[in-house]
This record gives sequence, structure tokens and C-alpha cells, in this order.
Amino acid sequence: MRDFLQGLQDSVCAALESEDGSGRFSEDSWERPEGGGGRTRILAQGAVFEKAGVAFSHVMGPALPPAASARRPEIAGKSWSAAGVSVVLHPRNPYVPAAHANVRFFVAGADTPAPSWWFGGGWDLTPSYGFEEDAVSWHRSARDAVAPFGASLYGRFKAAADDYFFLRHRGEARGIGGLFFDDFDELGFERSFALLRGVAEAFMGAYRPIVARRKATPHGEAERAHQLRRRGRYVEFNLLQDRGTLFGLQSGGRTESILMSLPPLVRWDYGAVPQPGTPEARLLEFFLKPRDWLEGSP
Amino acid sequence: MRDFLQGLQDSVCAALESEDGSGRFSEDSWERPEGGGGRTRILAQGAVFEKAGVAFSHVMGPALPPAASARRPEIAGKSWSAAGVSVVLHPRNPYVPAAHANVRFFVAGADTPAPSWWFGGGWDLTPSYGFEEDAVSWHRSARDAVAPFGASLYGRFKAAADDYFFLRHRGEARGIGGLFFDDFDELGFERSFALLRGVAEAFMGAYRPIVARRKATPHGEAERAHQLRRRGRYVEFNLLQDRGTLFGLQSGGRTESILMSLPPLVRWDYGAVPQPGTPEARLLEFFLKPRDWLEGSP
Repeated sequence: MRDFLQGLQDSVCAALESEDGSGRFSEDSWERPEGGGGRTRILAQGAVFEKAGVAFSHVMGPALPPAASARRPEIAGKSWSAAGVSVVLHPRNPYVPAAHANVRFFVAGADTPAPSWWFGGGWDLTPSYGFEEDAVSWHRSARDAVAPFGASLYGRFKAAADDYFFLRHRGEARGIGGLFFDDFDELGFERSFALLRGVAEAFMGAYRPIVARRKATPHGEAERAHQLRRRGRYVEFNLLQDRGTLFGLQSGGRTESILMSLPPLVRWDYGAVPQPGTPEARLLEFFLKPRDWLEGSP
Repeated sequence: MRDFLQGLQDSVCAALESEDGSGRFSEDSWERPEGGGGRTRILAQGAVFEKAGVAFSHVMGPALPPAASARRPEIAGKSWSAAGVSVVLHPRNPYVPAAHANVRFFVAGADTPAPSWWFGGGWDLTPSYGFEEDAVSWHRSARDAVAPFGASLYGRFKAAADDYFFLRHRGEARGIGGLFFDDFDELGFERSFALLRGVAEAFMGAYRPIVARRKATPHGEAERAHQLRRRGRYVEFNLLQDRGTLFGLQSGGRTESILMSLPPLVRWDYGAVPQPGTPEARLLEFFLKPRDWLEGSP
């Protein structure tokens, strides 16, 4: 598991450096006083990525807090271990969407006769400007990544992403979604792990073509301002709602590693609403409404 | 009460326009479907204030939710009404501190034989660069504002501000504090209301001299970047911890009015730590540690 996750971190960083062309990751290794640690890698001020974070962590504790086991009361108080990789990409060009991926593995009671384990993960896309071509290719990659593991999984995981990445106080989706799953063990360990690997390894293949299509798009100050305002929504989601962020901060996680997800530069303008008929308005009206992007698509 | 609060909004806006010299407030009046409404005033891109928000609201409901009455179980489920003014000031010059003030009045069960009422409020200062002269004058104004109502109030309200405006996940104060009180009724209605007025009316007198001293300080890109990173802490506090923000968003308040508190432009840079011996480091090491600013001061 650890080998897979660290290898994933390596391969994602290599692909991002290649796509960026000039930025390089630097690494912070850290240890957690209560057990475990991680290595956080950040590429800042690249040519394509204004900020890219790819973080591996493996942390553990002697007793699972009640808040972390609400859905599985039988594991409350047991020893636990969690390992995962998180990827957060904030591109410079407003026409390149931000992207997020995460895979995680959890074990509780590894020192008991009946340990519990599960996987979680997924990836989602957050455009400032919408393109149907990108949304369709993104969701087709998502569907193809999980298809070998069950015909119904894409529909379930896609709906879960739409549900999860939704800003309740705005009544607005964060982006165009993708895949989201948690508490996943239903295929048994080997097949569930294979699903996790399949999702993780398909991420860059889904994202790179979109970056390549959009990264040279000309833009000006208005597009940049719109992008920075959309990043404000990203911050709102992560600090108000994201379970991983809130659990990490509340449980004494490493703040800088948890908050590597926050965008490098962000605007809030009171009452900013796009003019009707503009691409900025179309983002909200069309792209940020959950929809079946693969309807009628092969 | 309503007259006082709306008059306060008028006078604070007038003083801010005068201090700014060029920016003008624009007003959004709004109504809340469940009852009440407000008028939110924003000055954007002024000469001194990059963003200033001064919001009046008066909202009400038929049944207080349990979360809002945890400290007063006897009022759960009663009708309620809340009125207040919030002021959030984000100056352009990094040497001018951000400032926040709030006064609020709450009534529960006004239609019952024994209504409950209380006041809350205060003001606090969030510098990006610390000046002892400013900290002392700010706290002296705070002490003087509440002195007529009891010798112990400044110490209590100052300690409450230090406790409240503290970022737990950073182990760091948001700013240098000031006054904070809530659930306040101990002087009876007339004297408690007089205290609220005294605090509200002292705010601009405490803040304007500091703005005047700092607003023409020359600065460059490094100071600006530091300011934008400090604003990131402000966002973290408001979205992760601020009770008013979280209660407002969770209870279906008007999102744009609640989030007017967020700064206009913000940076997050992974692992950014000031160089030892710099004014940026001194902010953290000296000014953002709760201390008695009036020790030995007349």
C-alpha cells in the first residue's frame, strides 16, 4: 500500500513537471508526534501551474475518535491507521480547470482479530470557464476507469461527487464533479484495491489532455479576475465543508499540508454576478448544474 | 434600537468615506423570506480602504433553533429577533491594520410574559505589521469605552477577545484583540444598552488615528505579499471558527452579506514563514501573543 501510494506520488509529480515544462516540486518530509508522517510536495509559480500540491501521508493513532467512526460504531476506540495521496492543482491560465484527486486507505483495529478496512477516493474538476468537450472527456475517463469493476459504479460515484462537491450556502456546485467514493470494501480487499489503483492511475490521463487543450488560451484581466473569484468558492468549500480538511485540522493534523489545497491567489468581490449571456454566466447556468455529461455519448 | 443601529451605520460610513477621501459606499437593501432584512453597504477600491463593509440587519423567526440556545436552554423554540451592525475594514496599505466591529441585540420570546434579551459586541484589530503605539492607543480606547460601566469590564472583554480571535489550527492570534462580549445583560436593559452604545461609538475614534498615522507609509511588493498572506489567516478564522459566520450560513442567512467580511484579495503560499529578525516575524512573535498592552500605561 505504502509502495503504491509513494509510487503514485512520484508518477503524478513527474507527469505534472512534464506538463508544466519549467516548474519543479520541492518536498517537505514531516513526522507527526502522535505517529506517522508524510511528504508534502509543492510546485509553486510554474509556467502552467500556479500551485500544484501532491501530498503523501501515513498517520495512525491508538484510539479512533467517535467523530471518525460515526458511520461504523463498532470500530469506535480501536487503533487506526490511514494512508493516502492528495493532489490539488491550481493552474495559472483561467481556461485550464483546477483539479483535485485523492486516494486513501483506512484500517481500524489492525491489532484485533477482526480488523476493519476501507478505501476512499476520486477526482473532480473545477473549471472557471466551461467546455463541453472537456466535461465529456473528463467523465468518459471517469467512467472508463471504474467500468472494469462494475457497470453501476460510475453512476454511483458520479452522483456521490455531485452531492459532495456542492456549496450549500451558495446553492452551487463547486465544479463539474467526477468520481467520489468512501467506505468502500464491497469488492473484497484485492478487487477494491485494484479499483483504487485504477482510479488513481487514470487521473493524469483524464486531466492532461484538457490542460494541453487550454493552457495556451489567450486571456486578459477580466478572465483572471473571474478565475480568482471562482477560487474564492473553492476556499469556501474547503474551509466550510470539506470533511478531510475539517477532520484533519480538528484532529491536530499538519496545518500547512492540509491547507496546501488552498489556491495561491484569491479574490472576493461583494455581489459579483456575471453578466447574462457571457461565458462566466454560462459556467454557473450550465456547467455547474449536475448533469449527465455522457448522455448519448459512446 | 433600530434607530440607534441605523444611525450607527450612517455615522460609521460617513467617517470612513471622510477618512478614505475618494471611495463611496453603495447600498444593497434586502429582505429575508422568513422575516426581516437588512442594508449592506460596501465601499470597494477606495484610496485607503480596499474593501469596507458596514452592514445593518434585523432578522427574526418563529422558533429558535437548538444550536442557537445551547447556553440558554430555557429559550429553545421561542420566537426570536436579532438586530445588529457589523463593520469589516480591509485597508489597502499593509501598514494600516484591518479592523472589525460588531454590535448586536437579541430578544427571545418577545411574545411571552418573560422575554429574554441580551447584547453582544466588541471590536478587534488585525495588523499585518505591528506598532506598539497603535496597540497601546487601541487598547486605551477600549478601556476608556467601557470604564464608565465597571472597572473590571475591560479586563474581561479583552480576555474574551484574545480567547475568541485565536486560530486554533495555527496556534496563533488573529490580531491584537480589543473587546468582545456576548450574552450580556448584567447591568439591566438601560445600562447594558448604554454600554453597547459606548462601545459602538468609540470604535471610529479608536481606529481613525491609527489609519491616519499609517496610511501614507511607503511599501513595496514584499509588504503587500505579507499582507495578503495575513489576510489568508483572516479567511481561515472567519470560515473555520467565527460563530456569527457559521451560524449565519447554516441558518440560511444572506450569503453575500455574511461573507462581506472576506478580504478582497488573498494569498496562500505553502510553508511561508517570515525570516527571523524581520518586522513580519516580529508580528508573530510579539504582537500576536496576547499581552497586557496597558501595563504601566496611564
